[in-house]
Amino acid sequence: ARHIRRLLATENAVRRLAEEHVPLRVEPELVRPQTIAQRLSPDALHQGLLAEADPLPSPELEDIAPAGIVLVLDQITDPHNVGAISRSAAAFAVSAIVTTARHSPEATGVLAKSASGALEYVPLVTVTNLARALAALKERGFLVVGLDSSGAVDFAEAAIRSPLALVLGAEGKGLRHLTLATCDQVARLDVPGKIKSLNVSNAAALALYLANKRLAAA
Amino acid sequence: ARHIRRLLATENAVRRLAEEHVPLRVEPELVRPQTIAQRLSPDALHQGLLAEADPLPSPELEDIAPAGIVLVLDQITDPHNVGAISRSAAAFAVSAIVTTARHSPEATGVLAKSASGALEYVPLVTVTNLARALAALKERGFLVVGLDSSGAVDFAEAAIRSPLALVLGAEGKGLRHLTLATCDQVARLDVPGKIKSLNVSNAAALALYLANKRLAAA
Repeated sequence: ARHIRRLLATENAVRRLAEEHVPLRVEPELVRPQTIAQRLSPDALHQGLLAEADPLPSPELEDIAPAGIVLVLDQITDPHNVGAISRSAAAFAVSAIVTTARHSPEATGVLAKSASGALEYVPLVTVTNLARALAALKERGFLVVGLDSSGAVDFAEAAIRSPLALVLGAEGKGLRHLTLATCDQVARLDVPGKIKSLNVSNAAALALYLANKRLAAA
Repeated sequence: ARHIRRLLATENAVRRLAEEHVPLRVEPELVRPQTIAQRLSPDALHQGLLAEADPLPSPELEDIAPAGIVLVLDQITDPHNVGAISRSAAAFAVSAIVTTARHSPEATGVLAKSASGALEYVPLVTVTNLARALAALKERGFLVVGLDSSGAVDFAEAAIRSPLALVLGAEGKGLRHLTLATCDQVARLDVPGKIKSLNVSNAAALALYLANKRLAAA
């Protein structure tokens, strides 16, 4: 869905795409691999292709349909985690991700790679004031459930319904006080082992699985 | 459980540990923060402490008790993923992780940080021949279930029992042919969205949740 302004490609890449019958929307400019590598951060992997594209239009909070599940990220900044979360969000048909984090261009590269294409399916809505965004979601009918180790109930047993906004906090810090206070419910994810918390993207995947299964059964 | 040979600490770190009543098993050598930073990779985070410790004794395959769940990683090398998987393994009381990957010292640092202490609870057993290791687990009574998009059955519906060896493959590549051929069963993780595969650590967390829940109910 992106508008591609310019496409740099190596001869090998163009040949490979032709062999796989991938149509090119833009006439590629043939370059050497170094030309592409020079424009990327040192450890970035490319396959002989670099597209300069416009960002996808970033929707407003008001554009999110009051249906299904919305994921809300409270100051989660690690691009590996945000990328993996975006991928799980696309896998579990989440309607949008609401986030307070703005990522640097380098972090955006890591995030996009970890997301494996998910950013094309799940809009990322950036907000400056999370408590206000949660209040707006509530007004539009969303049940706002925070996931935090301080939760009174196991998320697998929590009373949830659609449309649902699921709020996750950053590694170590968890949800901020104002975020916790704004949630309709706070739930925890119970695990049986000696370590009691999961990596945040792992927790997101598990919560999305549980929410999806229970909302589908309802 | 590790033998600590030497502990470098800043004055601030020693004061903080004293305030939190954390006992030190080794007399710290007081150093400036730079002395610690110089011994680490440039982006490593430390909190004014560096312990030189022996590795935990690495158990052999034969030392793993034939009970509960063992996680088997087929050429998963990304240290962020292996770290997050180790953390989920500790959270879901996995008895051991069997892996083919050997990590460089730098990758081991990233892995240990992503694991958040999990490596102290879940032994990491490194093997060179995975098919032979899976055969040895089978002989000892383990049911070997591979997770792969080619699986004939959804893992949530798969016939599983304890002791269970759950086999995961690397991002993009999945399980190798010989690994697939050695598994008793191959199962997939069904998701409802447009992207059909999860990040491997997210898939591991979800599979461990499902396996744990079903084995506990059995």
